Amino acid sequence: MTKGRLKSNLDIVNDCDRFPYYESDPEKYSELLSICYGFRLHGSPIVGYIPHWVVKEMPWGQRWLVDHTRKLVSPHTNYDSVESQTSLIKETLERARDREIFKVLKGWRNELYPVLGMSGEVTMERAGSALFGINTYGVHMTAYVRDGDHINIWVPRRASNKSTYGGMLDNTVAGGIGNGEKQFECMVREAEEEASFPEALIRKHAKLCGTVSYFFIRDSNAGGETELLQPECQFVYDLELGPDIVPKPNDDEVEDFQLWGVEKVQMAIAEGQFKPNCALVLLDFFIRHGILTPDNEVNYAEIVSRLHRKLPFPTS
Amino acid sequence: MTKGRLKSNLDIVNDCDRFPYYESDPEKYSELLSICYGFRLHGSPIVGYIPHWVVKEMPWGQRWLVDHTRKLVSPHTNYDSVESQTSLIKETLERARDREIFKVLKGWRNELYPVLGMSGEVTMERAGSALFGINTYGVHMTAYVRDGDHINIWVPRRASNKSTYGGMLDNTVAGGIGNGEKQFECMVREAEEEASFPEALIRKHAKLCGTVSYFFIRDSNAGGETELLQPECQFVYDLELGPDIVPKPNDDEVEDFQLWGVEKVQMAIAEGQFKPNCALVLLDFFIRHGILTPDNEVNYAEIVSRLHRKLPFPTS
Repeated sequence: MTKGRLKSNLDIVNDCDRFPYYESDPEKYSELLSICYGFRLHGSPIVGYIPHWVVKEMPWGQRWLVDHTRKLVSPHTNYDSVESQTSLIKETLERARDREIFKVLKGWRNELYPVLGMSGEVTMERAGSALFGINTYGVHMTAYVRDGDHINIWVPRRASNKSTYGGMLDNTVAGGIGNGEKQFECMVREAEEEASFPEALIRKHAKLCGTVSYFFIRDSNAGGETELLQPECQFVYDLELGPDIVPKPNDDEVEDFQLWGVEKVQMAIAEGQFKPNCALVLLDFFIRHGILTPDNEVNYAEIVSRLHRKLPFPTS
Repeated sequence: MTKGRLKSNLDIVNDCDRFPYYESDPEKYSELLSICYGFRLHGSPIVGYIPHWVVKEMPWGQRWLVDHTRKLVSPHTNYDSVESQTSLIKETLERARDREIFKVLKGWRNELYPVLGMSGEVTMERAGSALFGINTYGVHMTAYVRDGDHINIWVPRRASNKSTYGGMLDNTVAGGIGNGEKQFECMVREAEEEASFPEALIRKHAKLCGTVSYFFIRDSNAGGETELLQPECQFVYDLELGPDIVPKPNDDEVEDFQLWGVEKVQMAIAEGQFKPNCALVLLDFFIRHGILTPDNEVNYAEIVSRLHRKLPFPTS
């Protein structure tokens, strides 16, 4: 929340899409990968990157194969079913949590994420996903109100006591997609939980407009360990509202909502006031609505691509 | 224009975004790169990939440095100004054209493309851009008419005698951006030339919605040599029209325009009737308008990313 130097839009992208690209920086890419282990399920391609120090600390026991030569971690070959692999991951993470090995596991959610693709059947506790570096999926919605040619956006501020990004600005509605949950149903649920939007309103007016994807590396603002790898894909929705509909907090995660013009939102982004991935969703909104253009953003083409990074592991 | 097996949307993407990704297939990526030379301007990073057989055939003469060990091609160090490098490229391509070395140079356009970024000052004849494998830029517009909840799209068919993709379907308006030309001005010009849209209509209603970018490798339908490398970025515009405005051909490049419903357009895409990059622009349109969703497209997340590939060379 620095009020110092303003960040460019490309700085904002670099703050979130932090993993290097092989094609532009092969040395840095290879250096970072060389300190990670590939994570595989039985018979699967690599579905996650586990940093070497996580490999060292995780209480694998005898039921995992940890190959230090090929830098690969996978369940022992006996664990070849959906159920046995899901249990193995669960028990290993519970053991790590109980022994208080990793700070991120203090944020245990009792929410299950798919490990392979969006409809993968093997699951993992959400709080463990960053340790294994798997792709994760979420929904983000931008609710906005037109005022003539201008657009105003409903911006919530996160509760200051939230363990991650407390007090920072957020997207109108956002949340992680649990295993087996449809994107749209997730959005309906989160819209009610976070902003008190009625279900019927969301079902009728929320519009899916694509995804925003990036390869994040955790920093200190994220809470818990830094340098964990998080490739993420957010399904982005637009919700155009009339002036009569006002979101209001429905849980203790959001402090309040304010209706801000685009310029005020852009300034808050430049000041680093938004949670990093939320700023990316807003940049995508500005691009789709013709607010950000090559005439006002010299890095336009680069930014559009960076907002839609091809994730490192299979998504389907 | 096969009427055989229908292509999936991912097949359609694979037909156009053909260059392998290091992160998913490092062997294939490295193999393809190993048969290319990097193209550099004076003091610049690599701005193009020249296939080895092009390096062999091009009449470089003494004014170029061709380094077979490091696989790099650049103007001789004496050529360090914008003017001298532009002249060198021009004279080399003219010599190759006059000697009829490359089929693609038969399509000489007398249009100049920027070599480095979109506002680069060194330029190159458009027909030569695929030989040097530089990033190129264009505009594509989708004109559509709402009919209740349905969307109908104005689809032109290319003249059957066009040397490239003759008789195939196209986007409502499309064209390449010349050096120094603004994207929007290019769109205004092409909309008049190709579809007889009045300038005032475009200025008022055409809306920039992002880019579609991919790394194409020329195939036989493209005319001229195959296996030339073409990283491309298209600036995509939407134009919503009332039912009273009808595009009509204004040159001999377009046979006719037809107003097709989304399902008919989708079928024509699956049948391979669209010019490959035009199909990608339509997929992006379907995604932005909530027509393509994860509920009807299992490869949704992969496709969104692939439509916005980070180009291999600097764009600004």
